[in-house]
Amino acid sequence: MSQKIGFVGLGNMGGPMAGNLAAAGYEVKVFDLVNDAMLGVEGVEPQSSAVQAASDVDVFISMLPAGRHVAGLYLDGGVLDAVSGDTLLIDCSTIDPETARMVASAAGERGVNMLDAPVSGGIAGAVGGTLTFIVGGREEVLEQARPVLEVMGANIFHAGENSAGQVAKICNNMLLAVLMAGTSEALALGVANGLDPAVLSEVMKQSSGGNWALNVYNPYPGVMEGSAAGRDYEGGFLVDLMVKDLGLAMDTAQHSASSVPMGSLAHDLYRLHRENLDAGSLDFSSIQWFYKPELRS
Amino acid sequence: MSQKIGFVGLGNMGGPMAGNLAAAGYEVKVFDLVNDAMLGVEGVEPQSSAVQAASDVDVFISMLPAGRHVAGLYLDGGVLDAVSGDTLLIDCSTIDPETARMVASAAGERGVNMLDAPVSGGIAGAVGGTLTFIVGGREEVLEQARPVLEVMGANIFHAGENSAGQVAKICNNMLLAVLMAGTSEALALGVANGLDPAVLSEVMKQSSGGNWALNVYNPYPGVMEGSAAGRDYEGGFLVDLMVKDLGLAMDTAQHSASSVPMGSLAHDLYRLHRENLDAGSLDFSSIQWFYKPELRS
Amino acid sequence: MSQKIGFVGLGNMGGPMAGNLAAAGYEVKVFDLVNDAMLGVEGVEPQSSAVQAASDVDVFISMLPAGRHVAGLYLDGGVLDAVSGDTLLIDCSTIDPETARMVASAAGERGVNMLDAPVSGGIAGAVGGTLTFIVGGREEVLEQARPVLEVMGANIFHAGENSAGQVAKICNNMLLAVLMAGTSEALALGVANGLDPAVLSEVMKQSSGGNWALNVYNPYPGVMEGSAAGRDYEGGFLVDLMVKDLGLAMDTAQHSASSVPMGSLAHDLYRLHRENLDAGSLDFSSIQWFYKPELRS
Amino acid sequence: MSQKIGFVGLGNMGGPMAGNLAAAGYEVKVFDLVNDAMLGVEGVEPQSSAVQAASDVDVFISMLPAGRHVAGLYLDGGVLDAVSGDTLLIDCSTIDPETARMVASAAGERGVNMLDAPVSGGIAGAVGGTLTFIVGGREEVLEQARPVLEVMGANIFHAGENSAGQVAKICNNMLLAVLMAGTSEALALGVANGLDPAVLSEVMKQSSGGNWALNVYNPYPGVMEGSAAGRDYEGGFLVDLMVKDLGLAMDTAQHSASSVPMGSLAHDLYRLHRENLDAGSLDFSSIQWFYKPELRS
Repeated sequence: MSQKIGFVGLGNMGGPMAGNLAAAGYEVKVFDLVNDAMLGVEGVEPQSSAVQAASDVDVFISMLPAGRHVAGLYLDGGVLDAVSGDTLLIDCSTIDPETARMVASAAGERGVNMLDAPVSGGIAGAVGGTLTFIVGGREEVLEQARPVLEVMGANIFHAGENSAGQVAKICNNMLLAVLMAGTSEALALGVANGLDPAVLSEVMKQSSGGNWALNVYNPYPGVMEGSAAGRDYEGGFLVDLMVKDLGLAMDTAQHSASSVPMGSLAHDLYRLHRENLDAGSLDFSSIQWFYKPELRS
Repeated sequence: MSQKIGFVGLGNMGGPMAGNLAAAGYEVKVFDLVNDAMLGVEGVEPQSSAVQAASDVDVFISMLPAGRHVAGLYLDGGVLDAVSGDTLLIDCSTIDPETARMVASAAGERGVNMLDAPVSGGIAGAVGGTLTFIVGGREEVLEQARPVLEVMGANIFHAGENSAGQVAKICNNMLLAVLMAGTSEALALGVANGLDPAVLSEVMKQSSGGNWALNVYNPYPGVMEGSAAGRDYEGGFLVDLMVKDLGLAMDTAQHSASSVPMGSLAHDLYRLHRENLDAGSLDFSSIQWFYKPELRS
Repeated sequence: MSQKIGFVGLGNMGGPMAGNLAAAGYEVKVFDLVNDAMLGVEGVEPQSSAVQAASDVDVFISMLPAGRHVAGLYLDGGVLDAVSGDTLLIDCSTIDPETARMVASAAGERGVNMLDAPVSGGIAGAVGGTLTFIVGGREEVLEQARPVLEVMGANIFHAGENSAGQVAKICNNMLLAVLMAGTSEALALGVANGLDPAVLSEVMKQSSGGNWALNVYNPYPGVMEGSAAGRDYEGGFLVDLMVKDLGLAMDTAQHSASSVPMGSLAHDLYRLHRENLDAGSLDFSSIQWFYKPELRS
Repeated sequence: MSQKIGFVGLGNMGGPMAGNLAAAGYEVKVFDLVNDAMLGVEGVEPQSSAVQAASDVDVFISMLPAGRHVAGLYLDGGVLDAVSGDTLLIDCSTIDPETARMVASAAGERGVNMLDAPVSGGIAGAVGGTLTFIVGGREEVLEQARPVLEVMGANIFHAGENSAGQVAKICNNMLLAVLMAGTSEALALGVANGLDPAVLSEVMKQSSGGNWALNVYNPYPGVMEGSAAGRDYEGGFLVDLMVKDLGLAMDTAQHSASSVPMGSLAHDLYRLHRENLDAGSLDFSSIQWFYKPELRS
């Protein structure tokens, strides 16, 4: 078992992830620009810099908001220069594939192994250690990282070479936005024509309309117990984050000259929804309100 | 058990449906404007008019292309005037809810029970007797019809009052078009960025991108054995039919002043696909080609 | 000069149109289901039925809300049977081309000449006699109608054979919706990035972004004096009417298997705008608010 | 009159622009990574580096493909360090506003004046000296640059402070794409319903559908003499360039959290058009073919 772990980025996600590693018996050296963020995590050892957190560890993990932070940390910030060839790097941030590829390639030139391992599952998954990791990098490097990832998550997928984790997560989340908007739209159409949303949901679930949003995250109030829809869409996977992920999808599409009309429209619907209903901090299933404003209490 | 059935409309779907009823031991009186269509079905009794097929039967079933044909048959064509109050009417056509409601209401005024029971499952389902029926009408009328429906289908859903079957099918198929276009788009984006379509499919299936199109009808060639994608999209659920169903969804949305941006875009993508790739007679998963033209052989 | 005119449909548009004909010296026999609508127009002669208004006149004009009213009036309502072959029929309603074609064809079978002549210019144009007529029908019939049309309007276009007036108006208004949404979007984007909306408008007007919405109906508050934007989008060409016209465009596209992605999206944006901002009775340039909700006072 | 000009980037646009300056009597020192590009322009003085071209000149002009080239030239490439405070910098590239702002700000810190001055008008405009410049930067700096700009262009607009030229051009071109797609769509719809494209164009031009694409760049073959449509869409403003400009618009929208549904859809329609019809090197009015594939010869 790897003994020492470095962890940079202790936000809503990174904090509990690092805490779970400490609770599992790892020695976890952490750094965050916000001092209080480090103090809020039990059992970890705050450091005075990212480089310090990366020094003399077996595994180094980062969880940052965007590609420029990741490039800043590993390249300009000196982490790549600080780590030894035995240290395994895992970037759990959700970022653009280009930056992921570039940083992993720079690591490779120094003989250092790196994985991109963006997560899904939200804060609840981070706290409960039930995240899903979508991993890019070499198979054998993933095997080496697996014990550590399994402390933080319940599902681990290998998507391909470096940056493939980012690409797969981006594709998945773009599709998810399409599923959620499409499902909300179909439910609103049915209800406007006299159907009971629970009955329509049941029919479509068992027919060819079945999908994750409909089946396990139903956006219509009153259909599914415990859903975000039942608590006025508070908490959950925020509209702001979905807009961010859709932005990454749009960038990735531009980079590869891909056409993504359904994803583009979902992106704009989410932006219009956020703007017109001030919905940035609501769960992303709140798009149902945009289709059926009279549902708002 | 009901003994005598009238059946009008013996096309690709109606023919095998009527044949299955005859094979199950019912006496089936049939009519179709195309004489050969009647002769092609074993065990049925061709009639010289729709009214004749509707006379003196316990159950009368219609399977026609569009609302105007259904209104023509029951109202102008005299079937409502010809049937007795004991005859149960089942319209299996996929039509606009307004016509369905109007015809059922005219039947009700004459004391005749009617169901709208559009199907999914395609020609294979019609031949195999494994169709899905989405039924609108009163619960007890559905119970009365159930034995007959069970000869032709494997799943029977009760969506609500008269016309609810049409509405539910329309909502489902609009959502299905969104799922298929969104899935094709996500797969094309992933592949353009270096992912293996089978690996990406597996990741999304087990994550929040899971949906009917991805899981059981994968549009990418080489991912799923036996899929339409594996035979250059021949056969299956045709683009022409999806465009028709999306047209019904658009009409229904207009009727109820509903906003359906994702469905509208799917409608236009399917029309552009049909027009530019001459794809009307291909399976609807061929939209994958529209996203990735270089896949065409 | 034609001496006697029949006029059916005295709403916000039809009322002042009939009034202008009376003021120009024509004898105008009118009918409307709403009695007060007839009494509110000076100089006209109220009748007790549409057929009476159509009897013994040189020109018969209708101005109704939708295709079913027009078919109801001319076919079921008996006007076609009541008029003589010398009466020239002009339907000024904005309706679906199919109905226009069908009614004109039924008139033709009876030897009666008919024009479809939908208008633009709104209530102000109707009151001021400055409407634009887009006319479908034979050239020589239009020439015969011209003196009467010139009393009510300032511009008369000949679009082609019967129903061509409807098609041309539908195409124009679909394009107009695209221009207005696109212009509002470009202005919102520029302002969000620090530009002055008046300066940006001027630049685009003189460049390749110039269009009717930008040039003469600028949707951004404060840019153009006298615009609807300057009075919180009150009055003008209502969102409800634009949604209706876009609905006709969608029907027409379905009928001809045409792809209309930009028009479809504009249709949905206008429906979402109406629903979320309760904007049905606002001028259609209020779509600017949907793009920039903080502009709302 | 400024005497010496440095010019970097002698592609299809930059080459003739530099040539016109030389022809007007300026001493023009040029640099391009492609040696032949420098040799192809008459009257200019090839240099061995960009820094050399920027040394000891009154005005320094750059015309490069993208933001990273501009940042590379002025920052990493050392031009900002090489120029004196008396040199006026003009970047004529079409790039993202963020980079434009950053570079201008870095110039300002060194006491050097800079303008962003993207152009429209294409190769013909560059050759003929009839370009349109949309300028960002201080008014008095623009006045200083005006004599030089007037050699290369016919219209000069001042859009605002630094980067405003880029923003205004991006907004304009996004709107232009919407106009062109919307116009093509309206024309295709009209023709599919029996109208003559020339007659419909005339009607809409004089009505509220009037716009730059319809009025001066009609995309329908046979309507307007000398249009790209008349020569199978060869030459002109290429689809590839429109896709690039729409990409910049999408980036700019993301940066400012703006919703741009019409622009996004136009972006995707142009990408699908390019992909399915191999249309990257056709004029951007060729989108008409995407709506009406049967027009292709």
